[in-house]
Amino acid sequence: MLSGNVSKIDVLIIGAGPSGLMLATWMARMGVKTRIVDKRFDRINSGQADGLQSRTFEIFDSLGFGQDIWREANHMLEIRFWNPDRSNKLYRSDAIVDTVPGLSRFQQATLHQARVEDHLLNYIRKHSEIEVEYGCMPESLSINMDMVEGDDEYPVAMTLRHLVKPVAKTETSNDPRKPVIPNGLYRSNIAADTTDALLQNAQSTEGTRTEKILAKYVVGCDGAHSWTRRQIGSVMEGEHTDYIWGVLDIIPITDFPDIRYRCAIHSSSGSMMVIPREDRYVRLYIQVTDTDESGKVIDRFKINPENLVQAANNILAPYKISYKHCHWWTAYRIGQRVGSKFSAYERVFLAGDAVHTHSPKAGQGMNISMHDTYNLGWKLASVVKGQAKRSLLETYSTERRQIAKELIEFDQRFSRLFSGRPAKDIMDKEGIDLTTFKEVFEKGNLFASGCAVDYGSSPIVAKMSYPGNARSDCLVGKQDLAPNVPIGMRIPSHRILNQSDARPWHLQELLPSDGAWRVLVFAGDILEPAQFSRYSAFGKALSSPDSFVNQHKPKGAEGGLGSLFEILTIHSSPRAKVELLSLPEVFHPYSPEYGWDYNKIYVDDRSHHEGHGQAYANYGIDPRRGCVVVMRPDQYVSWIGELEDIDEMNRFFGRILTA
Amino acid sequence: MLSGNVSKIDVLIIGAGPSGLMLATWMARMGVKTRIVDKRFDRINSGQADGLQSRTFEIFDSLGFGQDIWREANHMLEIRFWNPDRSNKLYRSDAIVDTVPGLSRFQQATLHQARVEDHLLNYIRKHSEIEVEYGCMPESLSINMDMVEGDDEYPVAMTLRHLVKPVAKTETSNDPRKPVIPNGLYRSNIAADTTDALLQNAQSTEGTRTEKILAKYVVGCDGAHSWTRRQIGSVMEGEHTDYIWGVLDIIPITDFPDIRYRCAIHSSSGSMMVIPREDRYVRLYIQVTDTDESGKVIDRFKINPENLVQAANNILAPYKISYKHCHWWTAYRIGQRVGSKFSAYERVFLAGDAVHTHSPKAGQGMNISMHDTYNLGWKLASVVKGQAKRSLLETYSTERRQIAKELIEFDQRFSRLFSGRPAKDIMDKEGIDLTTFKEVFEKGNLFASGCAVDYGSSPIVAKMSYPGNARSDCLVGKQDLAPNVPIGMRIPSHRILNQSDARPWHLQELLPSDGAWRVLVFAGDILEPAQFSRYSAFGKALSSPDSFVNQHKPKGAEGGLGSLFEILTIHSSPRAKVELLSLPEVFHPYSPEYGWDYNKIYVDDRSHHEGHGQAYANYGIDPRRGCVVVMRPDQYVSWIGELEDIDEMNRFFGRILTA
Repeated sequence: MLSGNVSKIDVLIIGAGPSGLMLATWMARMGVKTRIVDKRFDRINSGQADGLQSRTFEIFDSLGFGQDIWREANHMLEIRFWNPDRSNKLYRSDAIVDTVPGLSRFQQATLHQARVEDHLLNYIRKHSEIEVEYGCMPESLSINMDMVEGDDEYPVAMTLRHLVKPVAKTETSNDPRKPVIPNGLYRSNIAADTTDALLQNAQSTEGTRTEKILAKYVVGCDGAHSWTRRQIGSVMEGEHTDYIWGVLDIIPITDFPDIRYRCAIHSSSGSMMVIPREDRYVRLYIQVTDTDESGKVIDRFKINPENLVQAANNILAPYKISYKHCHWWTAYRIGQRVGSKFSAYERVFLAGDAVHTHSPKAGQGMNISMHDTYNLGWKLASVVKGQAKRSLLETYSTERRQIAKELIEFDQRFSRLFSGRPAKDIMDKEGIDLTTFKEVFEKGNLFASGCAVDYGSSPIVAKMSYPGNARSDCLVGKQDLAPNVPIGMRIPSHRILNQSDARPWHLQELLPSDGAWRVLVFAGDILEPAQFSRYSAFGKALSSPDSFVNQHKPKGAEGGLGSLFEILTIHSSPRAKVELLSLPEVFHPYSPEYGWDYNKIYVDDRSHHEGHGQAYANYGIDPRRGCVVVMRPDQYVSWIGELEDIDEMNRFFGRILTA
Repeated sequence: MLSGNVSKIDVLIIGAGPSGLMLATWMARMGVKTRIVDKRFDRINSGQADGLQSRTFEIFDSLGFGQDIWREANHMLEIRFWNPDRSNKLYRSDAIVDTVPGLSRFQQATLHQARVEDHLLNYIRKHSEIEVEYGCMPESLSINMDMVEGDDEYPVAMTLRHLVKPVAKTETSNDPRKPVIPNGLYRSNIAADTTDALLQNAQSTEGTRTEKILAKYVVGCDGAHSWTRRQIGSVMEGEHTDYIWGVLDIIPITDFPDIRYRCAIHSSSGSMMVIPREDRYVRLYIQVTDTDESGKVIDRFKINPENLVQAANNILAPYKISYKHCHWWTAYRIGQRVGSKFSAYERVFLAGDAVHTHSPKAGQGMNISMHDTYNLGWKLASVVKGQAKRSLLETYSTERRQIAKELIEFDQRFSRLFSGRPAKDIMDKEGIDLTTFKEVFEKGNLFASGCAVDYGSSPIVAKMSYPGNARSDCLVGKQDLAPNVPIGMRIPSHRILNQSDARPWHLQELLPSDGAWRVLVFAGDILEPAQFSRYSAFGKALSSPDSFVNQHKPKGAEGGLGSLFEILTIHSSPRAKVELLSLPEVFHPYSPEYGWDYNKIYVDDRSHHEGHGQAYANYGIDPRRGCVVVMRPDQYVSWIGELEDIDEMNRFFGRILTA
């Protein structure tokens, strides 16, 4: 039973890695009372994840620091394949582009996890008082079942233990010329989980103290050994393989010619992947187990940096590789597993490595983990703030569990092909066909960009029918009005101009992650009187007291930051012929303090210095008649309709949002 | 006589505005012992300059923060002209592009001076221990003539007075609803100079203290009322007019349709310029004097924000303008003057407003002032570090005084046309022809971009002959090898790819302001054996002990940061067919610690995601034979020659640099 000093919190986040921090960005931006705890005492300064996908950069850009990380990161433009020829000599067999051209403003890149966390932490500090509480771990969790459906309840009771920072035990080397290199084995899936031991140890250690709190929501972002996962009885389903790989971060000294390209190398001595990094560093993924002729796995040697670089030399022969600088190393066992459930009663959620593990070579881990909480964050904040109904939260599991499964399927195929021994000839059924490997890799690149995510139908993705969306009450967007703006996917970005000053913007730059739903009014050719009438009529409908804009108005909101909706117009008439102030006021609202709003009306026209974005043509939208696109706060497309379909929009929002 | 505690310093900078801070960036980056003092106690937080030219952004980019300011600034893409029609009704007569397309990666933009200073200060702190000493003003300066030519001498003796920060006297308003708005009148040229009064007052104030120092070099960046200028007897030459203009920074509430465009407005009630700014702000330049029918100047009224906005309303009628937020206001008298000399014995220098004043409407002031010290900084640092001969410093005055004169000529024409009354008809000789005004404005935009600066011949600009470059010893670059890389101008930027990883870079991004001279080896088609031989032979010549690279090697330098030269190759063969490691080592040096250098070899080829830069075609360079371009540390082109012209290069550097 709880009694005494029990504090209340809206959201408790367990774990301050990329997944937990991404969740905290939403809470910070949308003003939700949040705590975030981590059992570690120190930030990670080397190693860990490093791959950043196109979609991840788009998300960072919506938080305002995408361009900063983009400039700091190493860009990976091309993948090179190296295979053994008939006489087992290594040769460069192929080169393919890494990120599909035209897909995104950003391409696949690498930057180590600590720098990514720096940017997330800066953002959180800029927008809130939230600070990570290090050295704090959960000790108990219980959910009061009577309260789970109550909007204002705090059904999750937790005990937290504040640890005492141990006196630093620096690992020292016997040989002063050989400093000890940090490794990640303690977090690797080949090491045992230390959480329980840490907890038992902590309980018996003097100076620690416990704290009881009540939370509305708890999110476990606590990694592959997730403590939270065990509390809610989610089970990791899938398998571990016997394949073990080593990872080495070095500044390479080598005559291998493609060391600054991403390389997939199959040789008779095993496989290796080269991932070029920032600051001259390169990450090598090196196979340290192999199958013998009978398919039995052979463990090659004890894992340490010296043995890893020796294995790399065997694989790369006749090229040689060595180093003077090594930042970090680790090893892991390949396995692909997904949590049996992603939430308990939509009160306790799991995200990131806590619900999916896979091999790191495709550079997906940090990305998918952040995307989990990027998906969850705005939903959770909207519900906590009383703007959205609790049923919105159900879409977290349905949307993200599907993605986790796709990731695991992709990774199974990819890892098997990469870890396998190259086929000696066409009759060698045990061996791997390297042409197939390249094809899988190539197809995988679209998936790996993160831009191919396609969420299924739900109350926030109006495509086809879905359970609860009965035929008699069907709500399906008109996809044919904008064939290249797929409902359920993130909107592609093209350049448009601000009507008021001719400045070009990428459409995505106008969709910051601030919690607002966005209505993109592709107004068509508004110089055409009939079309102007349609546009004006839509404006009038929006202004009506019955419209969703007025039905779901947050208290005290007048537009601007923190508002639930933003209406953006993109018309197709020539910029020079349109007068902003002749357009209906609802589309560029007036404030007695700041005058007219000059940042709501855009145009699909030629810019002075950056060409013509051809947005209507690229989206497949009729430049005369236009259409309306409803965007979720996370830039995914919810619904598409005609300028007359205000009733549909009202129904759409009526199902999700509170009155 | 000096005695007792006299400290020595290499460079003393007087004044910590944009000009002084830009000088300090070079000192910070190149490691020169420097102090920077300013008599103010507080940073400026509003008002002052706000226009940023294309070239200024390029310079910021070479310091690493150009993209940050670019994103933060308001971009000005288009200029709109408003004139009175025959019935004196205001109408939009024209629209022209602001920055000439294709000129630069950056366009004209606005951001207030304090934010620019923030970025400069951050850079200085990142690279050095230099901190601005506020509340410190110079009291005496003398130059020991016997020492001025000595390389290791400290010929400038100075007394500095450290002031006591006065108790803040906040101006308060009688009406609490009307807070006092900061104004810049005290720094304006219509107010008297307060320096002497401040100094006299300081000398009699308890608690101040003086300090004697000896400096190798002193630079006065101390503004229009420059104290340093008076010490060295430089006289401002030129004239003041009677035209007085007011400046008002407001968030406008208006029905004037072009308030977010840069506007030049002539009306029967006077002239006005609209400069849209960041954060909803707009700066208005409002004419407050006018000439009557006989050409006599009329002073319209007492200057304050209420009267200024009333004048704006008169000019804009029938449109209306008002505000709830005003950040800052000031007034100034138009005048154009240039200092009679920019230096004394190349030991004391003047820069920025200390040697040129003009009207602020063209947005030139902050730019030209920073460009002065951007020009001086690397020269001064090279001489102080013993890398360059003292004669290099003479090019500061010759190069920058010419620019100041051109600025003043441009501004005289521009201001006269802008301040004049519009002509009533073709017979009205006193009035201004508005077609001429537009033409001057349009032509002025190239000048105003800062990219048209063309330095005359000198030991560091090898074009035509110059005094001391006798015909018998003539050193003139071969301009025809690269017609679009004009010697004496900053190099235009086109995209090229890194050979080692296919990443696209704008050429200018490879020219950071770190003090290095850069040799751009346009190696041509190196897959062609004869051309590869030329390239290899050039590499061999560079490696010879007699080459400039080895003749002018700084102590202990091995290449990398801080080195005096960087050799960059840009070849024209297909990227996929060239192997980096097959190229001569001198072009991609090897380090036993870091391996091969992967950031020296580039290629003019198609990129995967950003098109083809067509660098050879754009520069007008023969893609088979190439050429060599020598770049100054400030990105201006010094010399162009063939791959065989190593002797010319040796002579070029021999004249400037120490052995």
